[in-house]
Amino acid sequence: MKGLARIKQDELGWVEKETPKIGPYDALVKPLALAPCTSDVHIVWGNAYMGSEPNRIVGHESTGEIVEVGSMVKDFKPGDRVIVPAITPNWSTVNSQKGFGQHCYGMGSGMSFVSAKDGTFAEYYHVNDADGNLALLPDNVSLEQAVMISDMMTTGFYGAELAEVKPGDTVAVFGIGPVGLMGVAGAYHMGASRILAVGSRPAAVKVAKEYGASDIIDYHNGSTVEQIMDLTDNEGVDKVIVAGGNENTLGEGLTVLKFGGVLGNVLHYDGVEKIPVPALGWGAGLSDKTIRGGVCPGGRARMEQLVKLIQYGRFDSSKLITHKFTNFEDIEEAMIIMRDKPKDLIKPAVILE
Amino acid sequence: MKGLARIKQDELGWVEKETPKIGPYDALVKPLALAPCTSDVHIVWGNAYMGSEPNRIVGHESTGEIVEVGSMVKDFKPGDRVIVPAITPNWSTVNSQKGFGQHCYGMGSGMSFVSAKDGTFAEYYHVNDADGNLALLPDNVSLEQAVMISDMMTTGFYGAELAEVKPGDTVAVFGIGPVGLMGVAGAYHMGASRILAVGSRPAAVKVAKEYGASDIIDYHNGSTVEQIMDLTDNEGVDKVIVAGGNENTLGEGLTVLKFGGVLGNVLHYDGVEKIPVPALGWGAGLSDKTIRGGVCPGGRARMEQLVKLIQYGRFDSSKLITHKFTNFEDIEEAMIIMRDKPKDLIKPAVILE
Amino acid sequence: MKGLARIKQDELGWVEKETPKIGPYDALVKPLALAPCTSDVHIVWGNAYMGSEPNRIVGHESTGEIVEVGSMVKDFKPGDRVIVPAITPNWSTVNSQKGFGQHCYGMGSGMSFVSAKDGTFAEYYHVNDADGNLALLPDNVSLEQAVMISDMMTTGFYGAELAEVKPGDTVAVFGIGPVGLMGVAGAYHMGASRILAVGSRPAAVKVAKEYGASDIIDYHNGSTVEQIMDLTDNEGVDKVIVAGGNENTLGEGLTVLKFGGVLGNVLHYDGVEKIPVPALGWGAGLSDKTIRGGVCPGGRARMEQLVKLIQYGRFDSSKLITHKFTNFEDIEEAMIIMRDKPKDLIKPAVILE
Amino acid sequence: MKGLARIKQDELGWVEKETPKIGPYDALVKPLALAPCTSDVHIVWGNAYMGSEPNRIVGHESTGEIVEVGSMVKDFKPGDRVIVPAITPNWSTVNSQKGFGQHCYGMGSGMSFVSAKDGTFAEYYHVNDADGNLALLPDNVSLEQAVMISDMMTTGFYGAELAEVKPGDTVAVFGIGPVGLMGVAGAYHMGASRILAVGSRPAAVKVAKEYGASDIIDYHNGSTVEQIMDLTDNEGVDKVIVAGGNENTLGEGLTVLKFGGVLGNVLHYDGVEKIPVPALGWGAGLSDKTIRGGVCPGGRARMEQLVKLIQYGRFDSSKLITHKFTNFEDIEEAMIIMRDKPKDLIKPAVILE
Repeated sequence: MKGLARIKQDELGWVEKETPKIGPYDALVKPLALAPCTSDVHIVWGNAYMGSEPNRIVGHESTGEIVEVGSMVKDFKPGDRVIVPAITPNWSTVNSQKGFGQHCYGMGSGMSFVSAKDGTFAEYYHVNDADGNLALLPDNVSLEQAVMISDMMTTGFYGAELAEVKPGDTVAVFGIGPVGLMGVAGAYHMGASRILAVGSRPAAVKVAKEYGASDIIDYHNGSTVEQIMDLTDNEGVDKVIVAGGNENTLGEGLTVLKFGGVLGNVLHYDGVEKIPVPALGWGAGLSDKTIRGGVCPGGRARMEQLVKLIQYGRFDSSKLITHKFTNFEDIEEAMIIMRDKPKDLIKPAVILE
Repeated sequence: MKGLARIKQDELGWVEKETPKIGPYDALVKPLALAPCTSDVHIVWGNAYMGSEPNRIVGHESTGEIVEVGSMVKDFKPGDRVIVPAITPNWSTVNSQKGFGQHCYGMGSGMSFVSAKDGTFAEYYHVNDADGNLALLPDNVSLEQAVMISDMMTTGFYGAELAEVKPGDTVAVFGIGPVGLMGVAGAYHMGASRILAVGSRPAAVKVAKEYGASDIIDYHNGSTVEQIMDLTDNEGVDKVIVAGGNENTLGEGLTVLKFGGVLGNVLHYDGVEKIPVPALGWGAGLSDKTIRGGVCPGGRARMEQLVKLIQYGRFDSSKLITHKFTNFEDIEEAMIIMRDKPKDLIKPAVILE
Repeated sequence: MKGLARIKQDELGWVEKETPKIGPYDALVKPLALAPCTSDVHIVWGNAYMGSEPNRIVGHESTGEIVEVGSMVKDFKPGDRVIVPAITPNWSTVNSQKGFGQHCYGMGSGMSFVSAKDGTFAEYYHVNDADGNLALLPDNVSLEQAVMISDMMTTGFYGAELAEVKPGDTVAVFGIGPVGLMGVAGAYHMGASRILAVGSRPAAVKVAKEYGASDIIDYHNGSTVEQIMDLTDNEGVDKVIVAGGNENTLGEGLTVLKFGGVLGNVLHYDGVEKIPVPALGWGAGLSDKTIRGGVCPGGRARMEQLVKLIQYGRFDSSKLITHKFTNFEDIEEAMIIMRDKPKDLIKPAVILE
Repeated sequence: MKGLARIKQDELGWVEKETPKIGPYDALVKPLALAPCTSDVHIVWGNAYMGSEPNRIVGHESTGEIVEVGSMVKDFKPGDRVIVPAITPNWSTVNSQKGFGQHCYGMGSGMSFVSAKDGTFAEYYHVNDADGNLALLPDNVSLEQAVMISDMMTTGFYGAELAEVKPGDTVAVFGIGPVGLMGVAGAYHMGASRILAVGSRPAAVKVAKEYGASDIIDYHNGSTVEQIMDLTDNEGVDKVIVAGGNENTLGEGLTVLKFGGVLGNVLHYDGVEKIPVPALGWGAGLSDKTIRGGVCPGGRARMEQLVKLIQYGRFDSSKLITHKFTNFEDIEEAMIIMRDKPKDLIKPAVILE
């Protein structure tokens, strides 16, 4: 079978491999929809690949059709159309039992795609523990919608959940790339009254407003901290979601946060050695401002929970997709677009039907 | 001054009293909007009045204008238009410090209106701890909207909060009187994907749908439990809000609840001695289905938090008002309508501007 | 192999069966310690057996030595001495992913012993998902201590956890059978300042005091509710654990609970159809007294967490054992003692080394 | 009256002032026990004084006897012996209603002593909201024990609470000054199985062990991170309390924390501009390691909750006191000792009876 791989550092290319073998609890899936993620870009052209193996097929966002299931799989069968989460934990480890399947064996190891085996940008891919990690695609949910759940929606909503957004809260969302936009949507669906979204690209601003942002903070207009304090009569915000920015964003978020507030971080501080926490903004350790940050949850229960928002008409996750392709081989161009980030890009996707 | 009082058991009537005196931390308020509550009806014509004093002025839902403030009041002044919560705790008691101001001195004692002093259906009324218990009425929030926050919105939303509704949850709401409708809205704003609302009166059904109910369960069509199980493919619901019904409703709620689910009760089991919990529906005590139930929170922080949902355009609390009056004296007719509950009634209100 | 079985309703007896076959993720274990539970008694002589199969081997409390492991088991090998929890979930189901492995497929189904396969009172028994459900027995933890973790300690501590005991809390524990005694210990280790334990049998009273009970409430001396209110200057208690009693105990617990308190139930209301919640004690639904109740968590992470309290010298779980046997066949007598409950009994156990 | 004051920067001295006037809800208290805190030292000889007023009397830890109460005080009277918390919030503000009385008006403003009025090192001092902020001293609690509750015990226990210590947890406590020792005790009373305490001074090490530390990590023996990882078989710890150290301690704590763990900070990062969070130890923002940090809660409910642990014999808070004085004027020497920190010092106190 054919797959799009990190041939070696800085080189993306097609490889021909054997179709994966599946174990008794696993499934073999062929893609119906694929989307590249910033982390795929970092794996190929950055320093995010932790493995040593060359020719590793990349990709972890997908929706697919089951081709084969192992003998012990009970709830799925060939032909089923399924949402495939980026995070497919071994649910049985001690970390998973404690509620952190995303770190089932260690940091972020719930994402076995790419880190432990070939990813989803292939004609077929392997999913461990099909009963525990797949969710049926409801008939009225489109492939465009479904493929945005695997990582974007679960991560962005997790940001809002980490921040413990409550009805009536004023929430600042730093960064309105695809994850930040989902953070806006998550905050909205948890009852935020105001959502101050930090970003400037017109395509993203448009979707941010559609997803519930009440105000857009553009850093071209001056300090984001000052703009947020102005908009809130110097009271600051109840909750903060950090979904984009740089090593100073955490500190900006803390600075605009009220005492007793919570900051939910889903930004990967890539290439940063020390993330500075400003003593002033954090009350020198004593402000009762909580800092949480993590990898999105995955697995079947999570996918089933999230897809219901789409299935029952409360949310349209597909608005992220600005660049749509229709052939399997287009995933290469989608990766390159993701790397080059043209101005009008939020998220590319390959939809195969 | 004039006020509408419980003259004695079963007798509602007008009384003439002295304008209340205020202490240094208090405010004197004149009503701009008033609404009767089922509990006012129970106080006059039922057995809900706990006091011994005749001629007690009733009413606890209101929005008003400040006429006078005590010498220690810092944040409010005469002329300010304010949301007045039904629950105005002494925030300093041990119970309040533990997070239960609604029970500041004991069961439900955070509602000092009627229980400890004259209520709000008067030309002037007394508010204890103005800085702690009043919230400024934002310019763009109508009196109709504001007066529905004092008790209806905070109670209904509390039901959803007690039930710990999370994005994607399927939620059953038992009862779509005004509190239940606010429970529907609360569940919606906390991210419910499906809201199965139990009720049948057309006026309420219409608002339930506008507030986010996805399905209406009418008990005229058979067992509510069976209808809910059918609609959920026998899986049941993630969360339950009980806002209306009788002594068996708690048990019905538990029966349709999934293992690990939470039931939030805001129904007052009035006149019931024992509320039966069916062993089968509650797993004989071992189902990990949590039962919570309480009085709505009040006070300034709560009012400020809730009004923001209206102020920033996310919610219109005024849809509850089916019967609107415009003269102060009409509060008597509003009370009688509340007692007689005509078919098209959700909630009456007197709006004085 | 030989096993002690429910031959049929009301008949306990020995059976000869084939040694269980194990799958690739499972383990075959031979017992080093066994203990009967009240629920074993109910399975044989009550109505608690939900299955249809005769000759089902009973028992779910044990510590053992691994005899064989499946090909996919990574962390255990033959010869390892292991704590075996009563609850051995399939960690991969939707319920498990939501934190309720004890109900992995449905009510209490995490306990596969007896309900879905033969139990532990056999020369060999099968453990599903060895890596997820076994915990190594530390060298300095005795078999007497270990076998009390499987169900007694995890259940009693869960009662204290459900009740959300916090440092300084006054806690009432209803029932000081073996689970209630562990509830006392759990409350103690979560920081209770006072533990009012309801019970009267001298053997249990002695251990209750050693485990941290500050006061013993004997119902022979009058109403337990009144005694608790007297001891607390009519303030009541912060938290309640219900571990024994009858259908009225839940109501008694609610009656002595402060507003805003939490009741954690681990009592199985066996043979009760309706558990009455007294409106007075529960504030007619509005007292903000939370009722939680569930099956103990099991699995590896839970066992590893609990055994550390014993391993590092903070707790001695073996004090429950009043009747100790030393031969495998003695499990029959232990079962009969458990059924007949002599006055000096807390818990019998068979210790094979 | 006489009081020990910050005359001006770097100058401690006695002043003569008028006895404070009290309002209707306040109390006038004369000290029975006093203790200086590191923050008093920072106020006089460091840069911690935020006010502009010279001759401000310092001190916030005390137990006292009521001399006079305002006309509205209901639960206390002259002659009552009372625990006086360092934090005496206005319980009525929006922040207080949200559960953060310690920041009632803004950062740390719940401590009105010294920051907003004269402190406790005086012949008489003023306590705002007596009913909300004082707690009766039980007869069997000594002054030595009581005066350690006001700040040391509530702060140290808060560290353990912020860290969400659960039964069985392995906990690292960084710093075993008086607050860190109370963090050890807090972790112990919340059920920690192992407590790895970082410190080296023999007097503190002795009390740490008595309060429940299972292991002492001495940085003189090498990297604390490495020692903790060695002691935990490279697994790290479940929870961390940071109660002492420098700007790198937060990072060390995060580094030894397991995925999904929680760090509770009660260290004031005094004089530090940026507290660095190491990307490696925090999983570059994605490790699901939560960082919490705050000022201790105060007020009556908190004091009543904590003193019960002493009153009912579960904890002896007085072990912190290594240097005991008996005359009021000795508070000056106690301050100087606190500044100079002799090797055998944990905490000085002046006990006046």
